[in-house]
Amino acid sequence: MRDMLGREELISVERALELLFGYAPFNRTSRTKVSLDQAYGMITSMDILSPEDLPSFSRSTVDGYAVNSADTFGATDGLPAYLTIKTEIFMGERPDFSLKQSEVAKIATGGMLPEGTDAVVMFEHTQQIDETMIEVMKPVSPGENVIQAGEDAQKGALVIRSGNKLRPQDVGALAGLGITKVQVFAKPRVSILSTGDEIVPAHEPIQPGQVRDINAYTLSGLIMNAGGIPLRKGIFKDNYATIHESVEQSLQDSEMILITGGSSVGTKDMTAKVINAMGQPGVLFHGVSLKPGKPMIGGVVNGKPIFGLPGHPVAVHVCFELFIRPVLEDIAGIQEKRFGSKTGTIQARIGKNISSSPGREEHIGVTLEERDGELWASPIFGKSGLITNLTMADGTAVIPLKKFGVQAGEVVEVRLF
Amino acid sequence: MRDMLGREELISVERALELLFGYAPFNRTSRTKVSLDQAYGMITSMDILSPEDLPSFSRSTVDGYAVNSADTFGATDGLPAYLTIKTEIFMGERPDFSLKQSEVAKIATGGMLPEGTDAVVMFEHTQQIDETMIEVMKPVSPGENVIQAGEDAQKGALVIRSGNKLRPQDVGALAGLGITKVQVFAKPRVSILSTGDEIVPAHEPIQPGQVRDINAYTLSGLIMNAGGIPLRKGIFKDNYATIHESVEQSLQDSEMILITGGSSVGTKDMTAKVINAMGQPGVLFHGVSLKPGKPMIGGVVNGKPIFGLPGHPVAVHVCFELFIRPVLEDIAGIQEKRFGSKTGTIQARIGKNISSSPGREEHIGVTLEERDGELWASPIFGKSGLITNLTMADGTAVIPLKKFGVQAGEVVEVRLF
Repeated sequence: MRDMLGREELISVERALELLFGYAPFNRTSRTKVSLDQAYGMITSMDILSPEDLPSFSRSTVDGYAVNSADTFGATDGLPAYLTIKTEIFMGERPDFSLKQSEVAKIATGGMLPEGTDAVVMFEHTQQIDETMIEVMKPVSPGENVIQAGEDAQKGALVIRSGNKLRPQDVGALAGLGITKVQVFAKPRVSILSTGDEIVPAHEPIQPGQVRDINAYTLSGLIMNAGGIPLRKGIFKDNYATIHESVEQSLQDSEMILITGGSSVGTKDMTAKVINAMGQPGVLFHGVSLKPGKPMIGGVVNGKPIFGLPGHPVAVHVCFELFIRPVLEDIAGIQEKRFGSKTGTIQARIGKNISSSPGREEHIGVTLEERDGELWASPIFGKSGLITNLTMADGTAVIPLKKFGVQAGEVVEVRLF
Repeated sequence: MRDMLGREELISVERALELLFGYAPFNRTSRTKVSLDQAYGMITSMDILSPEDLPSFSRSTVDGYAVNSADTFGATDGLPAYLTIKTEIFMGERPDFSLKQSEVAKIATGGMLPEGTDAVVMFEHTQQIDETMIEVMKPVSPGENVIQAGEDAQKGALVIRSGNKLRPQDVGALAGLGITKVQVFAKPRVSILSTGDEIVPAHEPIQPGQVRDINAYTLSGLIMNAGGIPLRKGIFKDNYATIHESVEQSLQDSEMILITGGSSVGTKDMTAKVINAMGQPGVLFHGVSLKPGKPMIGGVVNGKPIFGLPGHPVAVHVCFELFIRPVLEDIAGIQEKRFGSKTGTIQARIGKNISSSPGREEHIGVTLEERDGELWASPIFGKSGLITNLTMADGTAVIPLKKFGVQAGEVVEVRLF
């Protein structure tokens, strides 16, 4: 985007996201049914209802004696209730008897209450007199220490809403309900095209002037962690026709396209040109008030997002977290986010003064350490584009758009890597 | 463990971990070599050194002109330096010429500096006079806007230490160094044995008195998320001989064993008996001052940890995070933890008064929400053992060992689920 005088016009991260999400919801992936073993981390594509009353029987929550609560009313240490041990209830068995007044049955946690009982007295509040008789020293109220039939989930009750990422315990809960197949969204496929005349594959020796393709590997891992499937389409020279052809083909087999590299001005313009040539609306923004990450390009073609990422490895990471992850999660079908999945940031004191130009958001690689119970972030003052910045950093400290910098000791937000 | 009077003796979570880690490091899994595509999330089993100088050439970090810095000294807006554009350096190519005094070459970010130059002037500080001549309005110092050959990583320099979990950007860095195979620890295998006469598989209809096997599915997911491979060994009735046989076999094919269920006193004792029968040192603790999770059993046999977990689904989650995850990470070979992987907890204000017995650590399921910019944790007052507690909770609020409870509005630590 250029202003009236032909200067590049940068927009804020916030505005760039607004432009992108103006086209949300993006084309969702198809729905599919998976077994519980495949369900971990998948996104539910419909509400899951309980197929039955659960538990199907009244169950003890403690080890003790199943009783008719009325038999215990008024019982105290000094004046206990004397009750008769009729039998023992075995785990997993349905008691095929009913208890009469003043009769109790020994029961373990999880055991099924027999007919004629409505509560359980814990062992701790009883004293065994002989093999057939106990003293109860404390009364129980009806329903005490019991989960009633249907109390956990009634048949038809909502258990997990559509658009939730299934955690281990959610899959456990489905198993408990007897649900062994679950309707989910297929994982979104994300094409990665590496461009740049200087880029060679990781397995090739490099000649002077060349660099290996770092970003395709970083992006593959970030995409997998965010619930997508990376499709590495290879390395393309800065040639309009070949990039155009690969983007066209990628629009067929993937839900999102990432074009990396193109650090030179010519390549950046070529990426934008290719995106615009693919369809409507094309490029939405080209250039963001962000460091690193200024040359970021975002666009949408026929409901599918296409991004042009800068070549700088740290910028790729920052741009993924700011722009690509939220869009990818939308495509994946996530509608509800657990708090735990949102906590990618922490507060820390910055170790050194850092100056920054107001008017751009700045992300600075930092290492983190605790000193005297406080968390400190030490900036890594490496030159732009060093690979070792990637492996050293624990995260990036964020200097917001409107600040001139931060003073040593000031509290900053750190996005964890 | 029982004291002299035969009462069950409970120990603190901290002490239980001390007992366990008295046997660390546990038997590590074998080392294996994987390709970069398989390396994500794996733990390095040796230090990774740079196989070459990187970059192998002096590289521009900006778009501009490669110059001999001495030619720009003293240049100002009013008195610019006039320099001759000799040629353009193309990306990925080694310039096969050298520049003489007052000559410059157009260069893009990532381009290789030609002989005779030692810095790059950004386009922004130049003015093009005609096709062969520029004005430079600002001096550059030697090395300015240049990454020197070998500056990123010198041959033999340590890039990633042994015992690190490879993040996407770490795999990217390896690709950049031309390392396509990496030595890692094989993922630890964890056997899961479900016990209990009342437990049936997820796919079976339940009879009154029975419950389905929730915990094996929850544990499988937690193990995978922590970097292990779950081996579900099936459901065993409360029979000493069959459990003994399965544990013995699991000691052959896995690095850790989890025995779940056994909510009844008899089963708990049976689990402890089986562990003690397997070898030395056997059971280390049996009973922890923790709610839920009090019946937890921890032991070690011939360098392999064996745990007996309570049957209660929320207790399983709490005990996994407190005891099993740290031990599993040790077996997996993790020696250095990134800060990001440690942030499983946040601070929140508790929504209601909660009483707790001092002398035990208590974990209460909560949902989280932001109100007026503050984070609030609302306790889920469900009865122990409800499946729906699992799906509702965002985490558990922790009431430490020595507290009597917390007041509404008090800040508590919440472990995220």
